[in-house]
Amino acid sequence: MEQGIVFDIASKAAKASKEIAGLSGIEKDSILRDMAGSLRENMDGLQEANRMDLDAAAKNILSSAMIDRLRLDEGAIEKMALALEEIAGIPDPTGGIMGMQRRPNGLLVGKMRIPLGVVGMIYESRPNVTADVAGLCIKSGNAVVLRGGSEAFNSNRAIADILKQVLVLHGVQPDAIGFIPVTGHKAVMEMIVLDDYIDVIIPRGGEGLIRIVAENSRIPVLKHYKGVCHIFVDAAADLDMAYNICMNAKVQRPGVCNAMETLLVDKEIAQAFLPEMARRFVSAGVDLRGCERTCAILDNITKAEPQDWDKEYLDLVLAVRIVDNMEQAMDHIDRYGSDHTESIITQDYTKTMVFLRRVRSSTVMVNASTRFADGGEFGLGAEVGISTSRIHAYGPMGVEGLTIEKFVCFGDGQIRE
Amino acid sequence: MEQGIVFDIASKAAKASKEIAGLSGIEKDSILRDMAGSLRENMDGLQEANRMDLDAAAKNILSSAMIDRLRLDEGAIEKMALALEEIAGIPDPTGGIMGMQRRPNGLLVGKMRIPLGVVGMIYESRPNVTADVAGLCIKSGNAVVLRGGSEAFNSNRAIADILKQVLVLHGVQPDAIGFIPVTGHKAVMEMIVLDDYIDVIIPRGGEGLIRIVAENSRIPVLKHYKGVCHIFVDAAADLDMAYNICMNAKVQRPGVCNAMETLLVDKEIAQAFLPEMARRFVSAGVDLRGCERTCAILDNITKAEPQDWDKEYLDLVLAVRIVDNMEQAMDHIDRYGSDHTESIITQDYTKTMVFLRRVRSSTVMVNASTRFADGGEFGLGAEVGISTSRIHAYGPMGVEGLTIEKFVCFGDGQIRE
Repeated sequence: MEQGIVFDIASKAAKASKEIAGLSGIEKDSILRDMAGSLRENMDGLQEANRMDLDAAAKNILSSAMIDRLRLDEGAIEKMALALEEIAGIPDPTGGIMGMQRRPNGLLVGKMRIPLGVVGMIYESRPNVTADVAGLCIKSGNAVVLRGGSEAFNSNRAIADILKQVLVLHGVQPDAIGFIPVTGHKAVMEMIVLDDYIDVIIPRGGEGLIRIVAENSRIPVLKHYKGVCHIFVDAAADLDMAYNICMNAKVQRPGVCNAMETLLVDKEIAQAFLPEMARRFVSAGVDLRGCERTCAILDNITKAEPQDWDKEYLDLVLAVRIVDNMEQAMDHIDRYGSDHTESIITQDYTKTMVFLRRVRSSTVMVNASTRFADGGEFGLGAEVGISTSRIHAYGPMGVEGLTIEKFVCFGDGQIRE
Repeated sequence: MEQGIVFDIASKAAKASKEIAGLSGIEKDSILRDMAGSLRENMDGLQEANRMDLDAAAKNILSSAMIDRLRLDEGAIEKMALALEEIAGIPDPTGGIMGMQRRPNGLLVGKMRIPLGVVGMIYESRPNVTADVAGLCIKSGNAVVLRGGSEAFNSNRAIADILKQVLVLHGVQPDAIGFIPVTGHKAVMEMIVLDDYIDVIIPRGGEGLIRIVAENSRIPVLKHYKGVCHIFVDAAADLDMAYNICMNAKVQRPGVCNAMETLLVDKEIAQAFLPEMARRFVSAGVDLRGCERTCAILDNITKAEPQDWDKEYLDLVLAVRIVDNMEQAMDHIDRYGSDHTESIITQDYTKTMVFLRRVRSSTVMVNASTRFADGGEFGLGAEVGISTSRIHAYGPMGVEGLTIEKFVCFGDGQIRE
């Protein structure tokens, strides 16, 4: 392989990772707080860099939603700074020893949580990811290699430069925050085979990008392709609760991965539940796509096509299916779901326990909105991303997801017989 | 991709994995005990199948060590049966809910341990791995796809057939134990890209095989290439303890991955420690390869070449290096180690704590033989393998390594504001 700039950045990050791993919690938190301060102090420079990205975005006629996500106004920069301060406030996830057991021969065996080493982050659009992920990696003692999207290139570079400068002021090798200063897929492809230097790849962005990364990476990938989240309204549901939760899950923020995309309704309750639910949805501007039985109950809604069942609309659109029972609802989720988040609305005790146990998604809920599937809402402090890869971390990933446990043993001369 | 027999077995295992995941602990343990009984009852058939492998091995002039590992005599079959009974005896790793916390809005959030889904096992030589891994997978609620080495093909198939038959008797889909009935690397290459059906690949065997798997797999791989384990004898070591531990780590079973391959000695203690240590090693038949300073103290030993420092001898050979201090010992381990197991021998409190924290290997010990780095010795019940991949599981992997935690939430109508 040609040992170009990506190789250079990753191998330097691997070297620097040892220093980061050795910092005390106090040192790491002081760095994070100084980074927050430095972002605020460099408000003007950041906005200037961001202006270049915004101008290019306007020229390339990006959607207003995309331009919105790109924009670093004062509020957005303050939010980044606050996020770093919040990360500084959570407990150090590394260095503690857990589960120390005394073996019959007197050997004490336990586990110490340590950093993974080097986190490879591949992301699109939102420049705040640069600061968030760098902050989470430092907190967990990891180095990071950042490869942001081309549309936010100048903003990302400006943020990374500020953060690296803070490392320098603290006498820490700035290589611990590696920023890949080239765009284009070639850099991604080079990055994901550097398994001697990068320990995990976390891609965030469009499904296309994530699939390319997953298919070509020689490094373990933690990712989710999409969130096709379901709510199953059981025959024993409290109807008012069901209306509120379903509305919230679909309407409160439809463009995110933990919004509901398919509503499953037990046939026993469909006639009582669906008309009022549909009335509320329609008055909130939701476009419903119903199965045959749903269309027989509701007038004037679109008939769902087969491809509606695994669609992530990310919009005010909802697929609705009437099922014979919870069994069929779980089969539907199993077949069409994305292992992200599912919720059952019911007052039936046994059904809650069976649903919680049987549904294999990374978050399974009872009587709550799918919108809670989020690291912050779950109390993880902050979120690196959500994993539906059934390895290492499953569901919202906080700083603990950036660590691993090694075995530690205290002996007093034990030898093996 | 051509959808051949490997695809067929993996996709059927994925289907069957849902049934296995739903079994109660009592059912799983009853299956495991019946499997043990069935192996004992089929002693003759197993030995007949094994005879075919042994005959082929003799014809192919395999080493006597390899033929030994292949052999399924009565004792070896009884050991397999006992291992399955032992696995039946450990607690069910799945289904419990941990760390349930009440969020400010009243939502209860916790984690439930669940099976990974389908484990892909690629292994060489020892046919007992077939029964051990199938047993560990059933215990943890996983389906398994087994791809054993060609030299044990008939033995492996006979064992898998017996285990599948027990599943049938219990009314469980036998596809949960998938056995790939073709040899050759093509089957391996087909298996490791089936990321829609297999959740993790665990390769055990020679470094060459493992590298091919790691480089080509589209599925996360948990593996260790080799075990270059170090012991560092610090200036503050108890010399008698050091003699005993070093002897044990090198000599008790030199052919395994947790045996010591390099001895590092603090220069302050080298003159006092090395002559007696060398006398004991030489009288046990150990061939020493010393650094320059070591050769100045010990007569008649071979000078170490640069390539000795990262060699896994798996034999009565030991590299010996004198270092200036613990810092240099840790740098040596960092540079040449394999992230497997390292031990420090010292009575110095501060050094133990620094060594434990700073050395990044999957097992780090104080005053104990590296030979203890083993799932059984650590109390994990049984071992799937040892991972030096810095993801998911690090160090000896028991049944817990075959599980993942999903989030579960109990609400009473929570919606997100």
